[in-house]
Amino acid sequence: MELGLIGLGKMGGNMAERLRLGGHKVVGFDFNKEATAKLTAAGSVGVNSLEDLVKNMQSPRAIWIMVPAGDPVDETIAKLKPMMQKGDIFIDGGNSNYKDSIRRHDELKKEGFEFIDVGTSGGVWGLKEGYSMMVGGDEDVVEKIRPVLETLAPAPDKGWGRTGPAGAGHFVKMVHNGIEYGMMQAFAEGFAIFEAKKELNLNNAQIAEIWQYGSVVRSWLLDLTAAALKANPELKGIAPYVPDSGEGRWTVFEAIDLNVSAPVITESLIRRIRSREQDNLTDRMLSVMRNAFGGHAMKTE
Amino acid sequence: MELGLIGLGKMGGNMAERLRLGGHKVVGFDFNKEATAKLTAAGSVGVNSLEDLVKNMQSPRAIWIMVPAGDPVDETIAKLKPMMQKGDIFIDGGNSNYKDSIRRHDELKKEGFEFIDVGTSGGVWGLKEGYSMMVGGDEDVVEKIRPVLETLAPAPDKGWGRTGPAGAGHFVKMVHNGIEYGMMQAFAEGFAIFEAKKELNLNNAQIAEIWQYGSVVRSWLLDLTAAALKANPELKGIAPYVPDSGEGRWTVFEAIDLNVSAPVITESLIRRIRSREQDNLTDRMLSVMRNAFGGHAMKTE
Amino acid sequence: MELGLIGLGKMGGNMAERLRLGGHKVVGFDFNKEATAKLTAAGSVGVNSLEDLVKNMQSPRAIWIMVPAGDPVDETIAKLKPMMQKGDIFIDGGNSNYKDSIRRHDELKKEGFEFIDVGTSGGVWGLKEGYSMMVGGDEDVVEKIRPVLETLAPAPDKGWGRTGPAGAGHFVKMVHNGIEYGMMQAFAEGFAIFEAKKELNLNNAQIAEIWQYGSVVRSWLLDLTAAALKANPELKGIAPYVPDSGEGRWTVFEAIDLNVSAPVITESLIRRIRSREQDNLTDRMLSVMRNAFGGHAMKTE
Amino acid sequence: MELGLIGLGKMGGNMAERLRLGGHKVVGFDFNKEATAKLTAAGSVGVNSLEDLVKNMQSPRAIWIMVPAGDPVDETIAKLKPMMQKGDIFIDGGNSNYKDSIRRHDELKKEGFEFIDVGTSGGVWGLKEGYSMMVGGDEDVVEKIRPVLETLAPAPDKGWGRTGPAGAGHFVKMVHNGIEYGMMQAFAEGFAIFEAKKELNLNNAQIAEIWQYGSVVRSWLLDLTAAALKANPELKGIAPYVPDSGEGRWTVFEAIDLNVSAPVITESLIRRIRSREQDNLTDRMLSVMRNAFGGHAMKTE
Repeated sequence: MELGLIGLGKMGGNMAERLRLGGHKVVGFDFNKEATAKLTAAGSVGVNSLEDLVKNMQSPRAIWIMVPAGDPVDETIAKLKPMMQKGDIFIDGGNSNYKDSIRRHDELKKEGFEFIDVGTSGGVWGLKEGYSMMVGGDEDVVEKIRPVLETLAPAPDKGWGRTGPAGAGHFVKMVHNGIEYGMMQAFAEGFAIFEAKKELNLNNAQIAEIWQYGSVVRSWLLDLTAAALKANPELKGIAPYVPDSGEGRWTVFEAIDLNVSAPVITESLIRRIRSREQDNLTDRMLSVMRNAFGGHAMKTE
Repeated sequence: MELGLIGLGKMGGNMAERLRLGGHKVVGFDFNKEATAKLTAAGSVGVNSLEDLVKNMQSPRAIWIMVPAGDPVDETIAKLKPMMQKGDIFIDGGNSNYKDSIRRHDELKKEGFEFIDVGTSGGVWGLKEGYSMMVGGDEDVVEKIRPVLETLAPAPDKGWGRTGPAGAGHFVKMVHNGIEYGMMQAFAEGFAIFEAKKELNLNNAQIAEIWQYGSVVRSWLLDLTAAALKANPELKGIAPYVPDSGEGRWTVFEAIDLNVSAPVITESLIRRIRSREQDNLTDRMLSVMRNAFGGHAMKTE
Repeated sequence: MELGLIGLGKMGGNMAERLRLGGHKVVGFDFNKEATAKLTAAGSVGVNSLEDLVKNMQSPRAIWIMVPAGDPVDETIAKLKPMMQKGDIFIDGGNSNYKDSIRRHDELKKEGFEFIDVGTSGGVWGLKEGYSMMVGGDEDVVEKIRPVLETLAPAPDKGWGRTGPAGAGHFVKMVHNGIEYGMMQAFAEGFAIFEAKKELNLNNAQIAEIWQYGSVVRSWLLDLTAAALKANPELKGIAPYVPDSGEGRWTVFEAIDLNVSAPVITESLIRRIRSREQDNLTDRMLSVMRNAFGGHAMKTE
Repeated sequence: MELGLIGLGKMGGNMAERLRLGGHKVVGFDFNKEATAKLTAAGSVGVNSLEDLVKNMQSPRAIWIMVPAGDPVDETIAKLKPMMQKGDIFIDGGNSNYKDSIRRHDELKKEGFEFIDVGTSGGVWGLKEGYSMMVGGDEDVVEKIRPVLETLAPAPDKGWGRTGPAGAGHFVKMVHNGIEYGMMQAFAEGFAIFEAKKELNLNNAQIAEIWQYGSVVRSWLLDLTAAALKANPELKGIAPYVPDSGEGRWTVFEAIDLNVSAPVITESLIRRIRSREQDNLTDRMLSVMRNAFGGHAMKTE
């Protein structure tokens, strides 16, 4: 089928290519002219404006938006709407907050448009291995874009599904990332323990490779970790600095709002925040307190 | 090669069968006569005493011990030793504490015996998929039992390795289980959030299945979870009660001893402990304190 | 000075009495007629409507609102505004979210009114011991209500202060409660450890009493705990069920928003949430997973 | 009464002085000649060897040992024993592990000596304010040293007590310190949140001072913190580096051994460990993993 695609970056560019290989017609736009040119060169239709994107598509259109969460999504929709027709479908495939997705769905519905939220996992590996997609929205609308989803997925009937009404796609993807934080942290702690156990002279790269087969912890994350450790066994040059991109903290907020205790996902987030703290007041306070009551020496700067 | 195997339970029984299928001669013993008989019926050599086990084997013997960690391992070794000869190999394939393994290795070495510690992962699935094995001990001794390890492993060159000197096998397996606790807890928290989000009416079994393909969290644990949720979507009849078998808490102790901060593995353990607490004093204390300073109502029993 | 007081419950009623004893004229209103009557009986002016409250006061009025956080505050202000005059002062002494307080301040300021947010701590003991008050708002307006603050405080120059602009009062009170959660949880865990150490036959009530003098953990919370344990050493009849009233979770949200790692305050909140979870899915999932990979027995319900 | 005192450092020196002021005869020894001389100068009996200490005392002797936990305690007892007589009392007032105290009590008892373990809290403030003492050991022996305990305590009948049999003193002190870790961490996190809330321009020193009167968090730790913040509002020159002295981690181990969930005390310890980690592998692993699956940029060193 025909799909408009806005945002041809790391994720969007690969998705366009997987769709083209799957026989779909992709009309793609990016503010980065190079990305658009690359799309055209690969055999899809790269266009230089949202206007051209809309013009190059037949109604009912389905336009997949792959831009940073937040205002960019609203702005893109606002620009597109006046050019589009009733029944056209907006698909948000980025990492939007599910509350925004519910709002966008409801607003667009009132104006005669359709909206689908797709939580998309798979990262830079999706072109080759397919994307895991959690889809939220009206059932009949999801059916309309089924051909696209079946191609993007690892297999037509695997790795994707409509998880519920509007918002359910991004909600499930949000928690997916929360779980991902927890798994990553568990692995990282384990390897840190190995590194610290000097007298056994363990080899993290070897251990990761052993675990890839037959162990309880075998997983895609471990496969990637094993490859990364093979390439750089001591992680030389990598700073101990870990960003978080939103879904983790939203998962924590949501768990608290829902009165679900989620200590591990929460600690994983806290630990990432900790990795970015400079000149830590908490620890300096503790040092001062110890000195105040016990006369313990303080390390100075 | 010929291998003695003591303990023919869930793990040991399956290992014997995988070894037999791989062309090895297994001489097996279990206090449970039924398990021994089953071994014989399957085509291996089931014996009814440790004496018979030793007698039925040629020196240098390799005897794989698959009994509960702690005293049973020491007792088994103590009983066997007088019947065995210098150069015979003891293999502890259970979940022993690595400190015990180092001690046993050193003690046995002094008496002319060999000792290998094998952390064995794979659970009830090992017969079919092979076992992940982390092996600690002297390099030349590990080489002597290589044929057995290559058969038990998922593939001769995959899923196993000598991770270091005596103790290194059980140490790595211990941390493996700590990581496993963290991964399990992360998944469980995620699904609990889904269940609590009533208005989206999410389906845990469906979500687990979607994630099996293409997602970042795809893993063997998720495969098993998806199957379990398919069979019992609401986990009916299952009590919220989670034992821990030792390695998790040892990992926590070790992390603290090594001064490695491991909040997620630690929280996973704490959460399991919490699941078994009855009539919780901590929470009753909090309720009383709130009442004491703020006059807040206390829920009574 | 003259002060209007709306909300004569546990906190408000005691504050009125402390103010009266300090020589102030309190005009008080509560939907509960009994509370109003009690105020009158005590020698203050109890009124039966907001209209009467406003009428019974001289402009510039200062009206202290002591109602539940959220809509009740906005509704009370909305009802009062049409009856009040430019320069009149609204004081929110409840546990409002500081973001609401900033909004209210800014909105009221535009309409010519003044707004002060007062985080009030001290619970049911405030009448006797005075209230700790963290005050946010414009400096000149805080000065106008200084007589009231000096009386409510433990001493005119102790236990209160303007901590900053609008919102700063409730912000500081919010974090105060977060810290309180952490302290309470630390104590409760300690006493739970004592209870579990059966062989030493420790006595929580005695220990709490010992610590009241000379120990590092001596504190008002400990004093209250010691009294509570003396009255009910085994906490008989108290359910392990711990509500949280908002400020704790707001503190956690704020810490994350500010990228400050606050594991202990966060864990204290999570633990309270955990105390209220029934039929815990997380733990049931863990039990099922253990069974799935290791064949471990599951406890059934 | 007469008391031998070994170890005249920060704690021991002050205790000697408080005892002297209370009318007791202190015979004190320290390897540091200066400390001994200071004791003599103050009016007590400073001696230059353990032999002299024993010789200068009448049997039944009571000797209070105030040396670092672990081997130094055993070594001191071993050196003293041959010079002492049946019925003489050893008192361990340091931060020994309670398991060692039970062992020492039982060993000494068999040899005809007495042993008392005293968990001593109060730090550098004890001279002035008295020490909180948690006493473990045989009831009749505790009675024999009662005069000393009544003088060291904040008041003869306050701040001390026999909490149980041998080990109970150090056990209660151990958990006391665990609670202390949690309280300290809760305060430190709160002040870190204030510092991060730039737009409210909060003043930690002022807030600490306000809270000293009437708030729920008022406590001795807060008093000390307020004084420290007044002296150094920005904690200039203090490194974010927090040692832990043993009791905290023992409390965590004990909680796990007893199957008591204690997340806050545990997190407080983990956070201290974290403050001392250099070149953190955990966080570098997380960064590498994010890059591996999502192509996210890594911060480099």
